[in-house]
Amino acid sequence: MDLHLTSPANPRLKALVGLRRRRARDEAGLTVVEGHEELSLALAAGVAPQTLYVCSELFSPSGIAGSQLIGSQPEFVSAARAAGSEIVTLSRVAFEKVAYREGPDGLLGVLPAVDRPLSGLTLPVDPLVLLVEGVEKPGNLGAMLRTADAAGVDAVVAADPVTDWGNPNVVRASKGTVYAVPVASASTAETLAWCRARGIRLVVTTPETDVLYSDISLSGAVAIAVGAEKHGASEELLAAADVRVRIPMSGRANSLNVAASAAIVLFEAVRQRR
Amino acid sequence: MDLHLTSPANPRLKALVGLRRRRARDEAGLTVVEGHEELSLALAAGVAPQTLYVCSELFSPSGIAGSQLIGSQPEFVSAARAAGSEIVTLSRVAFEKVAYREGPDGLLGVLPAVDRPLSGLTLPVDPLVLLVEGVEKPGNLGAMLRTADAAGVDAVVAADPVTDWGNPNVVRASKGTVYAVPVASASTAETLAWCRARGIRLVVTTPETDVLYSDISLSGAVAIAVGAEKHGASEELLAAADVRVRIPMSGRANSLNVAASAAIVLFEAVRQRR
Repeated sequence: MDLHLTSPANPRLKALVGLRRRRARDEAGLTVVEGHEELSLALAAGVAPQTLYVCSELFSPSGIAGSQLIGSQPEFVSAARAAGSEIVTLSRVAFEKVAYREGPDGLLGVLPAVDRPLSGLTLPVDPLVLLVEGVEKPGNLGAMLRTADAAGVDAVVAADPVTDWGNPNVVRASKGTVYAVPVASASTAETLAWCRARGIRLVVTTPETDVLYSDISLSGAVAIAVGAEKHGASEELLAAADVRVRIPMSGRANSLNVAASAAIVLFEAVRQRR
Repeated sequence: MDLHLTSPANPRLKALVGLRRRRARDEAGLTVVEGHEELSLALAAGVAPQTLYVCSELFSPSGIAGSQLIGSQPEFVSAARAAGSEIVTLSRVAFEKVAYREGPDGLLGVLPAVDRPLSGLTLPVDPLVLLVEGVEKPGNLGAMLRTADAAGVDAVVAADPVTDWGNPNVVRASKGTVYAVPVASASTAETLAWCRARGIRLVVTTPETDVLYSDISLSGAVAIAVGAEKHGASEELLAAADVRVRIPMSGRANSLNVAASAAIVLFEAVRQRR
């Protein structure tokens, strides 16, 4: 019999809300994923919620279209239960207290943290890696994860991360791909040492070069690096680059969004590596 | 002598707040642009505020770094005045009432609407056009404008737009490039007729084809079309396509963000057209 909670003041729900803080997530080694689509992606990637919070009153009556969904909402709950998730049903008022989004769909899961150290990454021969240094906005990190997933990137490494992979807004913006793409975090220094030790060529995007990204080879073992929204790649990262490349820009604003830059260079790599 | 307003209840400020509604903007033929960087881009593109609201208390003491800025904040005010802007200074409480952002920088302008009909676009020989159909999220429209600006796109056309170019969140997400790139809006039917009449080849991105975007020529007069976030290109748009192309996707989520898709195909066009 599933546990059923009705009061928003329940201590378990208070602890769940506490996981909005990064420190609480880090200490518990947990992250929070909300939504049928996002949880389906995690489950499809082999990651079941430890606990799945369910409010059937919030289920959409006809279900939601989406090729990545595991069944209807009730079918997803059954699949999670079969995969070992504890199921906790909530009253609407209780669920709305713990939900992150506007218009919640009645599914919220507590999952193991996605992050791992660099040593935990298993890479194929000639890997394609995306290295994001110091990126701040969860929406940009999430967008880059979706792009990395679509490009078939073998790992995404956050160097000197400002925002952690477990940030609920990253998970949400990534549409759950944070569970489909291997991700790691480390300092920039560790990341650069890891690239050298693995023989991964480091290609850093920066305006400060005349070499165009599409004029170099992006095959073999390669890491494509992008820097933070405001200041770009650090001096440390630029100094360690095997090649610095730029994206040609015609416009007045002269600043592509970091997620757009990553998409452009990653898919040039995909084009060359086909 | 500049007008100075201190009360948030002033009728002019109420009317200014009213411009948050699309209908009020459409009727007045106006849009609202906030921020030193965004207003600098508009002024550099030759568009001065009709009225510039200024709160010097909110200016950052040392100015903000940024290559697109026109001087410091006080210098920008002088430049706008020289360009014919009416200057209205506001108390802090009044400015915070009319500001859109958190952490406003003390500059907010009322500008002529950016939108024009298709007939108002002036195109070079062999134009590169971005056609966005039914895109809903202001952040995506803004990101695509930044990308279009960087790619040197000759016009961005919103077909069957859900969100107007004058939406303050579009202007903000575009970093003001909405004033640097020629933009227009029309129905999908009108847009398709316009492409045909101008001899512009229509390339529509969709998962429903085996043709890769990088395997076709993107030179000559070409419009690259992307569809709405959830449902992609309409049947009407797909049926009118000269070529349907897809972006190869390896991942589980199988859905690149629409702004990332536009960036990938536009910069493939840039690569081919160099």
